[in-house]
Amino acid sequence: MSAPLRVAILHGAGYTGAELAKLLLAHSTCRLTAVTSRSYAGRPLWNAHESLRGSTDLLFTDPSEFDVSTVDAVFVAAEHGQGAVVAAALEAAGWSGYLVDLSADFRLQDPLAYQSRYGQTHPAPELLPSFVYGLAEVKGPYPAGTRLIANPGCFATGLALSLHPVSRGLSPVDAAVTAFTGASGSGVKPSATTHFATRDGNVRAYRVLQHQHLPEVLQVLAPGSRVDFVPVSGPWTRGIWGTAHVRLEHGTTLDTVTHWFESAYAGRRLVRLTPGALPELRWSVNTPFCDLGWIVQDDRLVVGFALDNLLKGAASQAVQNLNLLRGRPETEGLLP
Amino acid sequence: MSAPLRVAILHGAGYTGAELAKLLLAHSTCRLTAVTSRSYAGRPLWNAHESLRGSTDLLFTDPSEFDVSTVDAVFVAAEHGQGAVVAAALEAAGWSGYLVDLSADFRLQDPLAYQSRYGQTHPAPELLPSFVYGLAEVKGPYPAGTRLIANPGCFATGLALSLHPVSRGLSPVDAAVTAFTGASGSGVKPSATTHFATRDGNVRAYRVLQHQHLPEVLQVLAPGSRVDFVPVSGPWTRGIWGTAHVRLEHGTTLDTVTHWFESAYAGRRLVRLTPGALPELRWSVNTPFCDLGWIVQDDRLVVGFALDNLLKGAASQAVQNLNLLRGRPETEGLLP
Amino acid sequence: MSAPLRVAILHGAGYTGAELAKLLLAHSTCRLTAVTSRSYAGRPLWNAHESLRGSTDLLFTDPSEFDVSTVDAVFVAAEHGQGAVVAAALEAAGWSGYLVDLSADFRLQDPLAYQSRYGQTHPAPELLPSFVYGLAEVKGPYPAGTRLIANPGCFATGLALSLHPVSRGLSPVDAAVTAFTGASGSGVKPSATTHFATRDGNVRAYRVLQHQHLPEVLQVLAPGSRVDFVPVSGPWTRGIWGTAHVRLEHGTTLDTVTHWFESAYAGRRLVRLTPGALPELRWSVNTPFCDLGWIVQDDRLVVGFALDNLLKGAASQAVQNLNLLRGRPETEGLLP
Amino acid sequence: MSAPLRVAILHGAGYTGAELAKLLLAHSTCRLTAVTSRSYAGRPLWNAHESLRGSTDLLFTDPSEFDVSTVDAVFVAAEHGQGAVVAAALEAAGWSGYLVDLSADFRLQDPLAYQSRYGQTHPAPELLPSFVYGLAEVKGPYPAGTRLIANPGCFATGLALSLHPVSRGLSPVDAAVTAFTGASGSGVKPSATTHFATRDGNVRAYRVLQHQHLPEVLQVLAPGSRVDFVPVSGPWTRGIWGTAHVRLEHGTTLDTVTHWFESAYAGRRLVRLTPGALPELRWSVNTPFCDLGWIVQDDRLVVGFALDNLLKGAASQAVQNLNLLRGRPETEGLLP
Repeated sequence: MSAPLRVAILHGAGYTGAELAKLLLAHSTCRLTAVTSRSYAGRPLWNAHESLRGSTDLLFTDPSEFDVSTVDAVFVAAEHGQGAVVAAALEAAGWSGYLVDLSADFRLQDPLAYQSRYGQTHPAPELLPSFVYGLAEVKGPYPAGTRLIANPGCFATGLALSLHPVSRGLSPVDAAVTAFTGASGSGVKPSATTHFATRDGNVRAYRVLQHQHLPEVLQVLAPGSRVDFVPVSGPWTRGIWGTAHVRLEHGTTLDTVTHWFESAYAGRRLVRLTPGALPELRWSVNTPFCDLGWIVQDDRLVVGFALDNLLKGAASQAVQNLNLLRGRPETEGLLP
Repeated sequence: MSAPLRVAILHGAGYTGAELAKLLLAHSTCRLTAVTSRSYAGRPLWNAHESLRGSTDLLFTDPSEFDVSTVDAVFVAAEHGQGAVVAAALEAAGWSGYLVDLSADFRLQDPLAYQSRYGQTHPAPELLPSFVYGLAEVKGPYPAGTRLIANPGCFATGLALSLHPVSRGLSPVDAAVTAFTGASGSGVKPSATTHFATRDGNVRAYRVLQHQHLPEVLQVLAPGSRVDFVPVSGPWTRGIWGTAHVRLEHGTTLDTVTHWFESAYAGRRLVRLTPGALPELRWSVNTPFCDLGWIVQDDRLVVGFALDNLLKGAASQAVQNLNLLRGRPETEGLLP
Repeated sequence: MSAPLRVAILHGAGYTGAELAKLLLAHSTCRLTAVTSRSYAGRPLWNAHESLRGSTDLLFTDPSEFDVSTVDAVFVAAEHGQGAVVAAALEAAGWSGYLVDLSADFRLQDPLAYQSRYGQTHPAPELLPSFVYGLAEVKGPYPAGTRLIANPGCFATGLALSLHPVSRGLSPVDAAVTAFTGASGSGVKPSATTHFATRDGNVRAYRVLQHQHLPEVLQVLAPGSRVDFVPVSGPWTRGIWGTAHVRLEHGTTLDTVTHWFESAYAGRRLVRLTPGALPELRWSVNTPFCDLGWIVQDDRLVVGFALDNLLKGAASQAVQNLNLLRGRPETEGLLP
Repeated sequence: MSAPLRVAILHGAGYTGAELAKLLLAHSTCRLTAVTSRSYAGRPLWNAHESLRGSTDLLFTDPSEFDVSTVDAVFVAAEHGQGAVVAAALEAAGWSGYLVDLSADFRLQDPLAYQSRYGQTHPAPELLPSFVYGLAEVKGPYPAGTRLIANPGCFATGLALSLHPVSRGLSPVDAAVTAFTGASGSGVKPSATTHFATRDGNVRAYRVLQHQHLPEVLQVLAPGSRVDFVPVSGPWTRGIWGTAHVRLEHGTTLDTVTHWFESAYAGRRLVRLTPGALPELRWSVNTPFCDLGWIVQDDRLVVGFALDNLLKGAASQAVQNLNLLRGRPETEGLLP
């Protein structure tokens, strides 16, 4: 057995960092050697991620003391704008390992689109061409030599996996989407919209038809596609669930739509298909799966999708992507 | 001051019965004189509705011992199929008071549609023409002499109030709706889908494009209208929240749509309008309001709606309807 | 009918302010004429309390523009330290209306105890002797001429009402208490401990044996009493629920304990007693009641208590206190 | 590497069955070869445990067709009364593999105590002496040759692990315990107390001072010990959290109590200790740990405990026990 891949998580004190650490500690061919955090530097990993106490003795590393030459791969779990700064520094240092960036910084190929959506000049536009958009079931396996992955957004993963097969079938697609996410999607920092007393038993739409993940989704659909997307906050912690309503050409059958999905995702174990029914959210929470189901009636299609925003929408898809970059089975460390 | 109206709740041991009792105990011109229940007969009201302990000394009456001649109005909170049986018995007895039926039995004017949706022959089709569909803001004030109201379904209230103004504007309307309800919508009887361990943190669609409230909604829309409705169970106790996506004619502005809504509901205090934004669920929970909001972009409309399924979707709309039948302000007993 | 009492809520943009406004808008002998708030000054009440939209047209008043001479009573819903500042200003101005302070500032008769618990010098120790501790069922009806009430803390209300009868029976009492509160108890301001993703499905003890409400509780118990109190955050929005374990003298029966409670609270409608059983939390949520129940076995007593922290633990007890000050029935505006 | 142990789960369609299957599918030295269920016989495992879809192709086996000779170990996840029937059948057949019974049937050494608590005659009292009570950190490692384990109850695990060190220190102990459990503790079958609309935001005590797990706890404590236990249902799905109040001898310090705990659990990785603080529930949910913390003040001790009722309170402790029976590290398959 060859030596395990040495892996670090950069800026790993948030929710995604916790999930990445949990996955990598249990990964049979990776070894988690460092997790960086400015605010937790020098303290045990479980000070931020209490459930990991007793599973690892790792301490958080100060980012300024992290030596990238000691690892073969990094996951960058920084905020938007910081992911590109980190990546640029590593590239400038001539490091040649695998990098999976979980920030939004390299998802949009057009730096102006980035500026428009994220309200800041792109910190490293020169690197954009080197990154591959890591929607694993659509873009992977990746071209030989790929080292740099832009890990998709959580909502984007659900919408794009739902609409990609339909877009190929209809070319283009025009979809009306309402989709919900849990409170972990807002990150660790407290805010009015994640206050328990405000969120408990509540439903709240935000950035209606304006969500920043929409351009990512359109990038993987046929030219001319349209998605009207209502993002919604739901009263739970983990998971994304949504519906996409689509008008079909007259006479399109359930079997036809099923064929679109089955051909798009043949052999991809981390997308689970349920023709003729919509998935429940709990089926996918705490799993690396995206669940897709669909119903057809009188020339209308409803696609339902469900995934764990911290796993298939972030950490497990990142690990899946590293597996693919290394030529390993994409489910390694994710399924028994 | 004239004597208060004497009111009874028939089959009032369920969730709707609790809300009706609470409203009627506080109503300035009604007096709650009886609540019937087979299983709780002879026991205090608070054995079923614990929060009412200390607010009333009423005992549940056995339905067989209830004397309708002692009251001026009844709310029938029976299950589907039983509402019609109760109403038929009262009519047969020659009683001439007000009756608001909260079951589904008199909502659909066509007994065959009832049979198709509810899986049973209509128990009293001869009474159907005497009932008025009680969607208060659309059908009320009611014709003089109206005594019998079919109180709308909870989902139907949200969908119909959302789509009625759009239907008048577009004539007909074609809408893609995804809407969520809390666990109280399933009634008191335990089931697999209301088990806390199954529902907590979960989202589950059911009867996709097949919900039994759909024909009620279509009854109030322009002929030729279409509604693709995905009903969903959400992890909370009270409240309905949904979105309706509608394609507009080219160039339709937000102002135009706002005019549709404002003209449809002018002077109706129990519908609250928020042009340019979607309502949050918690705004309407524990209130008698239905909240409606809308956003227009690039010839597409999204309408958001929110209401308390037990109040505007059942008990408070029933009281509102009784108020209207009596020629009282519709908000009496519902707003300060 | 005499003119209604004119009432204002000072610093009423928080959770308690919302409940006070709701109660006062529906109160038959009070009229809510002003609600102050620095941050919402000039905006409608429903900008902070959305569910009140459509029930009132009141705007928030800037505190600096509030004219106390226009009202007969005020509720002060300010933070600790600010309640005393507000009260001192009103007294200095020679105003002679009723004042119910919901902050902690006048609950402890000893200003040094205040300093020790709340970490600041008492802002107006000279007013302490004029305030009466407003635990209504223990301290009320209040002496004629009482104008100033220190409204009890939410936990304190539950613990003191539970232990007061036992303390009278045992003189003194020694109790081991574990009690839970919902997220609304932490106030509107977001924090790590009220983040939905942290609180959902979680239980967390804090200030174990050190809670600042403990001295209030001891003030109403027999000298020499001891309470070991573990306060806990629970995953819900409203309500306090707890148990108190007490050792009894050998041979003490359930009937004896029941007598303690029934004699202590005879005729007090806002305390509900359930001998031989512990109350459920939901019975009291959204009600003005405190529920108390108890079980005796082998010389040990367990008392259970439940109340809505925003109502009997704050707003409804404040209204109850104003009712008592005015010589009105204590339940006016609180029960039908 | 030797061949993996072949393992079956008998009656594995419930919540505990799901957790056992998940653990065993990922266990490096076990192979899950069969899961039985009467109601799901012949259907895929994921029909009952949806999140396992895509992780295994196993079908449920009809219990009548299960051949125990094909496995080396079984977990019995049957209801109380059925565990003993299953075990008796296997013993009668002369099977000599490992058996971990997760029902209550072999936890109490005295069949009359069983009858008194569970309301039925013990189905196989002759087997009682062969079973070892599987509270791993107290009773394990087990005597050589042990084959049969009675896996502890979920509440019992928390109470016994909390009180065992204190009982050794005080000999005997007298504790006042209030402890909460989530809805999964009630099993899959729907009931009034697990209805979401009843449980959401609610707290409810039950079998106060009468819980059937109490005799198990007393079995592991010093003779003469007493535990007053208030079991409570909380509004979450997974996890047990509780406090134990204990009176200490005058002058007992935190260090003394810490020594009790550290000496009792030295080297046991699945109990995590936090002297001077109480654990939060979420730290242990979805982990195989029991968390214990304690605070001492003025001769009083408060112990806090937290564990996942389905894992350390059932499935992971069962796997831990099988590991110990086999002489493997107790954390194998449970920690990375």
